[in-house]
Amino acid sequence: MTVEDRRRVKRLPRDVRERQILDAAVTVFSERGYHDASMDEISDVAGVSKPMIYAYLGSKEDLFAACIHREATRLLEAVAAGVRTELRPDMQLWHGLAAFFEYVGTHRESWQVIHRQSISQGGPYSEELLTMRRQAISLVDALLVRVATSEGLDDNATESLAAALVGAAESLADWWLDNPDVPSRVVASRLMNLVWMGFGGLVEGASWHPS
Amino acid sequence: MTVEDRRRVKRLPRDVRERQILDAAVTVFSERGYHDASMDEISDVAGVSKPMIYAYLGSKEDLFAACIHREATRLLEAVAAGVRTELRPDMQLWHGLAAFFEYVGTHRESWQVIHRQSISQGGPYSEELLTMRRQAISLVDALLVRVATSEGLDDNATESLAAALVGAAESLADWWLDNPDVPSRVVASRLMNLVWMGFGGLVEGASWHPS
Repeated sequence: MTVEDRRRVKRLPRDVRERQILDAAVTVFSERGYHDASMDEISDVAGVSKPMIYAYLGSKEDLFAACIHREATRLLEAVAAGVRTELRPDMQLWHGLAAFFEYVGTHRESWQVIHRQSISQGGPYSEELLTMRRQAISLVDALLVRVATSEGLDDNATESLAAALVGAAESLADWWLDNPDVPSRVVASRLMNLVWMGFGGLVEGASWHPS
Repeated sequence: MTVEDRRRVKRLPRDVRERQILDAAVTVFSERGYHDASMDEISDVAGVSKPMIYAYLGSKEDLFAACIHREATRLLEAVAAGVRTELRPDMQLWHGLAAFFEYVGTHRESWQVIHRQSISQGGPYSEELLTMRRQAISLVDALLVRVATSEGLDDNATESLAAALVGAAESLADWWLDNPDVPSRVVASRLMNLVWMGFGGLVEGASWHPS
């Protein structure tokens, strides 16, 4: 590295540097798992020295927690942005599900870290996942309440259905990690059909399509 | 303890003693969480000395793994026993869901340990949970394949829908831990309606009832 290079690297603002570190950490954690991921490799992939990583983002534990928090926040933002409240109820739900699977499909490393790595590590990391799940349930509940409020489903019922729907999406996205060849739209459409038409409709050959 | 008492205690067969220990451990782990559970308390609740617990079931880690394994196995057996393949497809699904929520409702400590404690501990314990989830998905998939095979849903589709359904049931049962006043049948019926009628049916006021 020349002196000129070094000066240019030094001039990067802290937030840019932190982003580089987190991007590299997500990649390494998703590939290796938490235990086998090394700070050396994260440092190599990020192109940022280990002392700087420790100074900016703390220990490997802290870095892992920061990864889960950032990735979970981005995922929720992507889904929230997908829901368009001016549309018909089914289209609102469809856009939310499509946004979720689109995001997971294009950020598989991210989902791997949020979901599998956080569960396999447990402790504070699984707390982060549980917090994300609660936020996702609130988001879906708000959608179901808008959709269903005039139809006699009470708050307790919509919240429980929101919990079921979030669990279904999470489990299906986990299945998808092992079946990556299925296109995002197909996965989203299966869940939409299940939760909108129901299995009773599906076995009779009915199906839901976005209008 | 008199000599006579001591002799009677000693005469208990090993499997009975192990059952006492595991019952006590499930109670203590579900109340305290893994970290705060002590072998002293488990020993007190079981009425079995600590050295005997170590001799029969190993360390606290081993004991926790044995709890998760036993409770998960019992839950799956209860659900499998609930599915009656001679019935109509919707009734097969209903009996499976009803058996699941019935079991979780009457064994809340067990579900707390299987689900929350294993996730919050991570590591080998979350592996145990993942294995159980895979077995549950196979069970539901077999049901969906029987129901749907003539209707053009391929294996990949039914497996993904089974994953969604298992995730929905798991997440709803987790929600239920925080909302214990809702009766088991009501929770089961909500999920049955969601996955059989679909939300589209529900908002139009349709509902499914066991015949």
